Amino acid sequence: MYINHFSHYLPSKVVSNSYFENVNGLEDQWIYERTGIRSRFKATDDENTNTMAIEAVRNGLDQSGFSAGEVDLIIGASYSPYDTVFTIGHAVQREIGANAAKVVFVSSACSSLINALEIAEGYIAMGKAKNIIVVASEHNWAYSNESCSKSGHLWGDGAAALFISSEPKGKKPGRVLNVFTQGLGHVGKANDSVFLRPVSGGLSMPNGRDVFINAVTQMRRAIDVVLENTKLTVDELDYVVAHQANGRIISNLQKQMKLADDQVLTHIKSHGNTGCASTGICFSQNIDRIKEDDLVVFTVFGGGYSVGALLLRY
Amino acid sequence: MYINHFSHYLPSKVVSNSYFENVNGLEDQWIYERTGIRSRFKATDDENTNTMAIEAVRNGLDQSGFSAGEVDLIIGASYSPYDTVFTIGHAVQREIGANAAKVVFVSSACSSLINALEIAEGYIAMGKAKNIIVVASEHNWAYSNESCSKSGHLWGDGAAALFISSEPKGKKPGRVLNVFTQGLGHVGKANDSVFLRPVSGGLSMPNGRDVFINAVTQMRRAIDVVLENTKLTVDELDYVVAHQANGRIISNLQKQMKLADDQVLTHIKSHGNTGCASTGICFSQNIDRIKEDDLVVFTVFGGGYSVGALLLRY
Repeated sequence: MYINHFSHYLPSKVVSNSYFENVNGLEDQWIYERTGIRSRFKATDDENTNTMAIEAVRNGLDQSGFSAGEVDLIIGASYSPYDTVFTIGHAVQREIGANAAKVVFVSSACSSLINALEIAEGYIAMGKAKNIIVVASEHNWAYSNESCSKSGHLWGDGAAALFISSEPKGKKPGRVLNVFTQGLGHVGKANDSVFLRPVSGGLSMPNGRDVFINAVTQMRRAIDVVLENTKLTVDELDYVVAHQANGRIISNLQKQMKLADDQVLTHIKSHGNTGCASTGICFSQNIDRIKEDDLVVFTVFGGGYSVGALLLRY
Repeated sequence: MYINHFSHYLPSKVVSNSYFENVNGLEDQWIYERTGIRSRFKATDDENTNTMAIEAVRNGLDQSGFSAGEVDLIIGASYSPYDTVFTIGHAVQREIGANAAKVVFVSSACSSLINALEIAEGYIAMGKAKNIIVVASEHNWAYSNESCSKSGHLWGDGAAALFISSEPKGKKPGRVLNVFTQGLGHVGKANDSVFLRPVSGGLSMPNGRDVFINAVTQMRRAIDVVLENTKLTVDELDYVVAHQANGRIISNLQKQMKLADDQVLTHIKSHGNTGCASTGICFSQNIDRIKEDDLVVFTVFGGGYSVGALLLRY
């Protein structure tokens, strides 16, 4: 399986930390020191999870190596849905005219992008799909409570699209060496550390400490799993793309792994946490840095909890 | 791939048509003639999509042929989520102690059960899973608008669990001969015939006519696809389990296919539309009728739109 291309979409509206001073009482420097975040994007009133997904796909389809009519599977990923019936994938299918595609929506919170990739792997293994679009889109502002001083300032909106095929296509295909996911619903305070209950109040993160501890441990472990599965080592990695939830989590991971600054791709400062779209957006923004033979690992941790990792060779 | 066992859960509370007379102005006989529905189940205040999923799994795990510790994948399915972060699968994982499982949540509206089965097929094809729980759960009452005279009376709550493995296990495993799904987001009024937009008003079905026309056409077509893929014919089918959305859709399908009454499994009269859980609940209730060598087809249609079919040999 190959990821031929990454693309992304970000809303035009930027919200800086100063906005929160009168909203949840937190000051710019306080937020920055604890989260690494200075600003984040916010969807406009006529944007939502589906429209952002469509824009991300539009931004990349011409470099995917296949046409809309050749797409045989679209997997949408999100925990902040606009419509749970006419889902992300259905909206993309209708918009681009991918009339032959199977369509499904998935979520394992911030881990969903890697779950979607593992599902895509399965369709390729069965011979049921050759050209696949995975599109992750989060409209956090639709569900978050901006007046919450624990998490209101953490979230950003955005979408990422991945164009995948069984054979390499396009100008810069990356070969998927290994995908790993695991559910961690049984671990720690997974049942109420982060939740998004649409009927009873939206997105909340009351137990950030439990999330932090498990995120740094599990994201590190997931990298080890995909390296062990491929008999590769940390020393051979060129880049690490970790879920962009919090600058401290990313720094902790960097220290654990003794990585140089330029090996760690991050945009947390200007994007906040864009959920399951975060690694896709971040890597799309850095794709020009990637050279032939580069080894890249994605590692993600999701509320609920879930963990996942992806190993790519260029 | 084998489905070793089906189980289900229904809430204790029953709401008969007479309830709606003062709520959306529709009378019992009017509803019954147009939908085939006399009553439906409603979750109690302390129940939700996650709790019903857990109960459905509890009701069947001891007949699954595997233990909780042996489960390597849990796929939750729903369009009416309680929590999009700590999802159905995460809740089941935590409750039963399926600590080794991968966990993902999926939706293609009322089609999701078949999408989940196709994803399960992929994990088995990759060798990444051997024992899988697929659990579909819908809490329609949490999102529906009971005062809507177009669709308020259609919905019911409930959950179904399917216990799946790569080899036959348990007392009555059914062999999966074929699974088919397709996205139909490009067809008709798929973008606004049925929607559930959590932020802006919940579950609605303003274009029932477009749904009806496409449902009867596409569910019939999906059956043909799985029969063609396996070189079997309609005459060889013993039972048909169609998505339980509306009695008229099921009758139309029966007439198109010239099926005898006892070949068509239905519970629409006493359950209403339980979304993606409907075929699973209905088949679980009829499992004692199934004999060795019986050929069973499931066919589903989902808002958004999507279609799917499953062919099982006992």
